[in-house]
Amino acid sequence: MRTVYVIGIGAGDPEHLTLAAVSAMNRVDVFFTIDKGEAKSDLAGLRAELLERHVARPHRVVVAPDPPRDRRAAAYTDAVVDWQGRREAVYAEMIEAELPGDGVGGFLVWGDPALYDGTLRILEAIAERTPLEIVSVPGISSVQVLAARHRLILNRVGSPFLVTTGRRLAAGGMPADVDDVVVMLDSGNAFAALPDRDLDIYWGAYLGTSDEVLVRGDLHAVRDRIVALFAEHRARKGWIMDTYLLRRRLPAG
Amino acid sequence: MRTVYVIGIGAGDPEHLTLAAVSAMNRVDVFFTIDKGEAKSDLAGLRAELLERHVARPHRVVVAPDPPRDRRAAAYTDAVVDWQGRREAVYAEMIEAELPGDGVGGFLVWGDPALYDGTLRILEAIAERTPLEIVSVPGISSVQVLAARHRLILNRVGSPFLVTTGRRLAAGGMPADVDDVVVMLDSGNAFAALPDRDLDIYWGAYLGTSDEVLVRGDLHAVRDRIVALFAEHRARKGWIMDTYLLRRRLPAG
Repeated sequence: MRTVYVIGIGAGDPEHLTLAAVSAMNRVDVFFTIDKGEAKSDLAGLRAELLERHVARPHRVVVAPDPPRDRRAAAYTDAVVDWQGRREAVYAEMIEAELPGDGVGGFLVWGDPALYDGTLRILEAIAERTPLEIVSVPGISSVQVLAARHRLILNRVGSPFLVTTGRRLAAGGMPADVDDVVVMLDSGNAFAALPDRDLDIYWGAYLGTSDEVLVRGDLHAVRDRIVALFAEHRARKGWIMDTYLLRRRLPAG
Repeated sequence: MRTVYVIGIGAGDPEHLTLAAVSAMNRVDVFFTIDKGEAKSDLAGLRAELLERHVARPHRVVVAPDPPRDRRAAAYTDAVVDWQGRREAVYAEMIEAELPGDGVGGFLVWGDPALYDGTLRILEAIAERTPLEIVSVPGISSVQVLAARHRLILNRVGSPFLVTTGRRLAAGGMPADVDDVVVMLDSGNAFAALPDRDLDIYWGAYLGTSDEVLVRGDLHAVRDRIVALFAEHRARKGWIMDTYLLRRRLPAG
């Protein structure tokens, strides 16, 4: 049976690789990657660097084009599901064509495969139709790097925290019943439109890389600076990835 | 100025250490640990194994007793805050007595320092009174190992997930507005009392270790088995650490 490793490689700092990820990378015959185009080529460069530095055994790298995705679709979930269907066809074809029947494939995934990444979902769908053993290897996510850089604990004593998307935050605002909210996939600076006066923000972009930018403070005091930094860096590099924690200030005691 | 590294070392699998954690461990002069007694001595053993395997330079290990904590206190948060106050005194004394003025200390923390661990909070409090540089190094948490072992993605497409405690779940039940809830610190099997008929549970204990136990399925179909496993393993080993995801089954589409 074919085996496919889905390996979390951290958010951008090559040192965030785990020993288990290095071991898994050294069991892979064929690495599958998706070409996301020029814009994210420094990410592709880092992936190549990790292979160069850590993989001693012979291996191949197979690159497939990324199916186009309609990011402006009104029904976000439908658009993602449709795009994942097309990705599924591309992945199934790559695995079928390039991986021998007892071969070991590998996908190197940014952050953690368990957090806002579709690779496992796509492979599970393929595994329903064809024998495929899937192994998930956890990695340090951008949320964890954000927390480490700001020296944050994500929860407060005995309290919950929510992990959500920029789209959800923009639609529903800060939830009333949770005081700590981590926001991912926010390409629209949803934080900047929040009316709440009792929030601190802990923001970071390009976390774990040499381009890392951090801002923290009262949301209304720093939001314009973050919006400006976001625009400036995106223009300069052609892409940006950011994440942040919104923390409600609570009365003492 | 003194520097203290708070280093996440993963949930129990020594291979989940990151390269950054290994580097940080090799900058430490004095490792500080808290003696949590016999019950968790295999955790202490694993910590010693990590030092043995990965730290080449001379270093010292200083062990302090854990201040007693009233786990039966009615006001949970007060009890934790009070206990953290006593820990703060112990930590401050250890650092003052054992770490030279320009020395580098280290705390090895299970999982990730950003997730339900008080070390950063205690050190930040100490740093308010005495010069201390704190560096947080992220680690693979038990939640990530849980997800990897069950090959889960914690979020569903475009959706949020909540991370909460067993105590909160027992008090408030499954939240109405979130369909995916990760539960930590549940010593009372709070899942077993939930009336909800539309939940799947993905449960794991001793994640990342050779004692790892995994169960998944319809909550009402598997809850008795999990409760029995929990009691059996806790009796056998003297301690148990578990975590789980509750996932609401949603109508297709």
